[in-house]
Amino acid sequence: MDLLGRIQDPHDLRRLKAEQLPQLAQQLRQFILDTVSRTGGHLSSNLGTVELTVALHYVFDTPHDRLVWDVGHQTYAHKILTGRRERMGSLRQYGGISGFPRREESPYDTFGTAHSSTSISAALGMALAAQAKGERRKVVAVIGDGAMTGGMAFEAMNNAGVHPEADLLVVLNDNDMSISAPVGALNRYLARLLSGRFYASARDAAKQVLKAAPPPLFELARRIEEHAKGLVAPGTLFEEFGFDYVGPIDGHDLHALIPTLENLRERTGPRLLHVVTKKGYGYKLAEADPITYHGPGRFNPAEGIKPPAVAPKPTYAQVFGQWLCDMARQDERLTAITPAMCEGSGLVEFAKLFPRRYHDVGIAEQHAVTFAAGLACEGMKPVVAIYSTFLQRAYDQVIHDVAIQNLPVLFAIDRAGVVGADGATHTGAFDIAALRCLPNFTLMAPADEMECRQMLSTGFSLDGPAAVRYPRGAGIGVRVDRSSLEALPVGVASLRRESRAATGRRIAILSFGPVLYAALQAAQTLDATVVNMRFIKPLDLDMLRRMALSHDALVTVEEGTVLGGAGSACMEALQSLGMQIPVLNLGLPDAWLEHGDPAQITAQLGLDAAGLLDSIRTRFPGLVGDHPDAPRRAANA
Amino acid sequence: MDLLGRIQDPHDLRRLKAEQLPQLAQQLRQFILDTVSRTGGHLSSNLGTVELTVALHYVFDTPHDRLVWDVGHQTYAHKILTGRRERMGSLRQYGGISGFPRREESPYDTFGTAHSSTSISAALGMALAAQAKGERRKVVAVIGDGAMTGGMAFEAMNNAGVHPEADLLVVLNDNDMSISAPVGALNRYLARLLSGRFYASARDAAKQVLKAAPPPLFELARRIEEHAKGLVAPGTLFEEFGFDYVGPIDGHDLHALIPTLENLRERTGPRLLHVVTKKGYGYKLAEADPITYHGPGRFNPAEGIKPPAVAPKPTYAQVFGQWLCDMARQDERLTAITPAMCEGSGLVEFAKLFPRRYHDVGIAEQHAVTFAAGLACEGMKPVVAIYSTFLQRAYDQVIHDVAIQNLPVLFAIDRAGVVGADGATHTGAFDIAALRCLPNFTLMAPADEMECRQMLSTGFSLDGPAAVRYPRGAGIGVRVDRSSLEALPVGVASLRRESRAATGRRIAILSFGPVLYAALQAAQTLDATVVNMRFIKPLDLDMLRRMALSHDALVTVEEGTVLGGAGSACMEALQSLGMQIPVLNLGLPDAWLEHGDPAQITAQLGLDAAGLLDSIRTRFPGLVGDHPDAPRRAANA
Repeated sequence: MDLLGRIQDPHDLRRLKAEQLPQLAQQLRQFILDTVSRTGGHLSSNLGTVELTVALHYVFDTPHDRLVWDVGHQTYAHKILTGRRERMGSLRQYGGISGFPRREESPYDTFGTAHSSTSISAALGMALAAQAKGERRKVVAVIGDGAMTGGMAFEAMNNAGVHPEADLLVVLNDNDMSISAPVGALNRYLARLLSGRFYASARDAAKQVLKAAPPPLFELARRIEEHAKGLVAPGTLFEEFGFDYVGPIDGHDLHALIPTLENLRERTGPRLLHVVTKKGYGYKLAEADPITYHGPGRFNPAEGIKPPAVAPKPTYAQVFGQWLCDMARQDERLTAITPAMCEGSGLVEFAKLFPRRYHDVGIAEQHAVTFAAGLACEGMKPVVAIYSTFLQRAYDQVIHDVAIQNLPVLFAIDRAGVVGADGATHTGAFDIAALRCLPNFTLMAPADEMECRQMLSTGFSLDGPAAVRYPRGAGIGVRVDRSSLEALPVGVASLRRESRAATGRRIAILSFGPVLYAALQAAQTLDATVVNMRFIKPLDLDMLRRMALSHDALVTVEEGTVLGGAGSACMEALQSLGMQIPVLNLGLPDAWLEHGDPAQITAQLGLDAAGLLDSIRTRFPGLVGDHPDAPRRAANA
Repeated sequence: MDLLGRIQDPHDLRRLKAEQLPQLAQQLRQFILDTVSRTGGHLSSNLGTVELTVALHYVFDTPHDRLVWDVGHQTYAHKILTGRRERMGSLRQYGGISGFPRREESPYDTFGTAHSSTSISAALGMALAAQAKGERRKVVAVIGDGAMTGGMAFEAMNNAGVHPEADLLVVLNDNDMSISAPVGALNRYLARLLSGRFYASARDAAKQVLKAAPPPLFELARRIEEHAKGLVAPGTLFEEFGFDYVGPIDGHDLHALIPTLENLRERTGPRLLHVVTKKGYGYKLAEADPITYHGPGRFNPAEGIKPPAVAPKPTYAQVFGQWLCDMARQDERLTAITPAMCEGSGLVEFAKLFPRRYHDVGIAEQHAVTFAAGLACEGMKPVVAIYSTFLQRAYDQVIHDVAIQNLPVLFAIDRAGVVGADGATHTGAFDIAALRCLPNFTLMAPADEMECRQMLSTGFSLDGPAAVRYPRGAGIGVRVDRSSLEALPVGVASLRRESRAATGRRIAILSFGPVLYAALQAAQTLDATVVNMRFIKPLDLDMLRRMALSHDALVTVEEGTVLGGAGSACMEALQSLGMQIPVLNLGLPDAWLEHGDPAQITAQLGLDAAGLLDSIRTRFPGLVGDHPDAPRRAANA
């Protein structure tokens, strides 16, 4: 029977009998596998949370009761059950539904997530708001064991523990694997649940024994009973924070989940349910290799993911990973640090070759940066591999622990600029504005793969903080010379094309990052000069002056926010030099980006060759001629 | 005997006999009281850590062994014992020694601190670096119970727990009071130590009992013994993270501290010593009121701190606190949140009047912001009171949880700009650059107290994120009308003075924040136009256009970094409007500020009237005449 097809929203779900739910879960799992294998998206985590999602919407009165999903990449079942089944084919595509919860998408998406470890804070806020408004409302946060290592989750637990009035349930979804392999003491601690059932019976046994204890032991026994869970179950940590701990239970067993959640629903105060799930559950290939199936592109579910027939162009992450291994061979001080992004940041090979110089610190960006600062104080050369969007988590640590002390920490900032399917929450828009204002900081943006390698060597060679920001995915395809570890001269730009236009019609494009190649293309039509600026900080002031003196207008381009960005830095410098010249700043707009195909988003933003042309023509109509072979904007843009 | 006078560095200290140490501690305490009462500075915390500091330098081989002080405001005894006794009279003064550890000040200052919760991360980095380099070295982090609530301390504990090879000792200095009153479950947990001595003997008793247990209980007994500490002592939490826990011991008892530290020195792996100290210890007035004596100005130690004879001008923090109470009376949705800065942020009155709408979440900036987002989702109107420099800790949460979701959270950003004695680590330099690039964000800078109130009302009235940034201390002294809760029109600047200079000599100063009054003063000499811009975002484009059209040069002034600042925003807007005009951007330089008297620092930066004049004359010599009554720069600048 097609149960799934009958469910338009959770009210329909709640009309089913409990016995029907395992069948529904089966259909849901199949639907997710079918959808994601066609659209791409997060797979392993979503297969792992099917039963939990069914149980939560079955037991709680959503959307009146609030469900907050930490990270939120595991919400496909949630989306399907809350009226978005038919839109799942548009997942993560332009104009389609998001891969994460979004408040504007559905009243069931109570809190937009994507970054880790925010759910308990938000849920506590909601629970106390309900209290203040006199509304009877349950709030449930679902958080993975990986996200639990993020410091703010602890901050929230610590704060929730003093609010016995908060009607807050935290569901710890323990799948023993965040994106990378499990790390950290907390994880080891959670791993004890493998013997959870034994512990559970041992606890009961202990209680029996103690009841028979002789009278002088009474006081001790009472206290032992109070702490009996701590002796035999893995909940102590959470109970220390004032949470009422229940678990662990099997997160794929609806017969365990439903009555347990029903019981917990009837209680109040901060409580924590520990469920154990398996990433990729129900799809053998994903169970066996949840990392490969973490966020696949399209594939045939019957065959599984195949290696591509033609080797694709290397990604910037791979270029970074290769550089890291090569530099590590040459300099034994090099130490690499990642906050749980081993695969995404291209560190798999390095971790294998240099396990003692590799630190996956868990989802803990703040600690990652200050830990690096500590290493640097002692003469090591730490390299922090981090996504632009996640570096926002460690902004204060970059300022206070690295930059003020002028410590030689190199930041390899991946996913700078447009990221595509993950949308606004993952866009690397703000790193230039946020970092270029820091004294002592060297900030670079490579135009291509080889320059990325050169800049990493440059940053590594400096005796102070430096960052190289490069985009998600592959570059233009420039060959990388792996024999070279040479640095670039700091603060020196590179003139890539010189305009032969007459005075009065001369435009220079100052380009930061891989958008250089679109700029070069546009420049051919315009007969514009093009400079690969390379360094956002320090800026090449000589080049800037030369360009301003020899041109009638300047155009800056970057894949970062225009507000406060590299173009803005150019204008500051021009004014300091006392030079007046019209400048057009192109880059990311003052708006949140939509998710979708990266090329499509880039075109939409006017950062492809046609878009650059368009913007330059619009701003400087008097300066540019119209050339017959000009590239046209994409029709859909 | 003058023991203190004989100690030039810790080697001298280590030549003393253990019996002499209490006397030394006594002299040290008196010296601190004498010094701080003359210079101002942190008192309570420093009186509380005298014995601990003596013991650490006595037992460990500093500076070869590394001592990392969390926050670092409790390092006066450390500074005195490490060669800086004679410079203590210059504490926190311009050119004098810093109130915090600084690497450039002494080899004993192994890591610069000032913000909270960084020590374990840095110390772990140092310990693993020693390991990698084959250096035998102990690393000790000293962290207070308040700092322990910061998420990154947990991230670091979690990471340290998997490094049994790290020779790392964490000393938890538990004084049951961070800057505000103790908050959070962790603190309640630590408070259990009040019965610590009982627990300690109970633990021993329990062990004895269990040795006599009948054979069938053997396995259970073994496990109980393993967990015996957890039954009877407050260390479980730390042991769960893989730390070897010892304590609690009396942190003022050198006979307990020294042998315990000696024992711990001989062990390796992550270990935690829990010491209990009393803030203000040994000075009765500070013991009784550690908050008043937390960071006093000068006072007579015999009399204690007296209320000032003349009521001083209200600080911006007080103006905020009054507004908060007044608005709370009018709008019951208002909820105030502080990350452990009740007194500093001016919240004492509000906390008393509206205890249920007041949330001190502990030193937990990340949680504070996302908790506010959760409240806002449910229709509350949260106000987050936070210092500019600490908001850096929650940059990602401002972006990801508040701004992307366009939630109505108001940030009351205190200590924006120059802060004076606390120096670079506390300067509010980057908030404009970091926040103005965020879509949906409204960012305001009041010129005076009344405008601060109006802007708070404005931000509160908006249906999206907003921030008001105001400086430390008092303003110009404009009377605040407490009957008014009226909002300003959004994005509208105010023309304050109009130049009558002839064409070719007309300058307009666009001012952001309280520097307006210096600008008005300078403008009299220059006969310049002055605009109080009020809104950094959205900028008043009409005003900007008018000023550019009717003047020959523009000057922007702000108390924030010039790079990416409000002046930069003006240039971006001018270029968007297609307007060319010389612009001079004045504000904080691309350098870390020194500590010292705020007025002196401000003058040094050229942000007083004389400095503004100087800069404008230098940049636009052709435009400005020389006027006989021009203010002169301070002689020391």
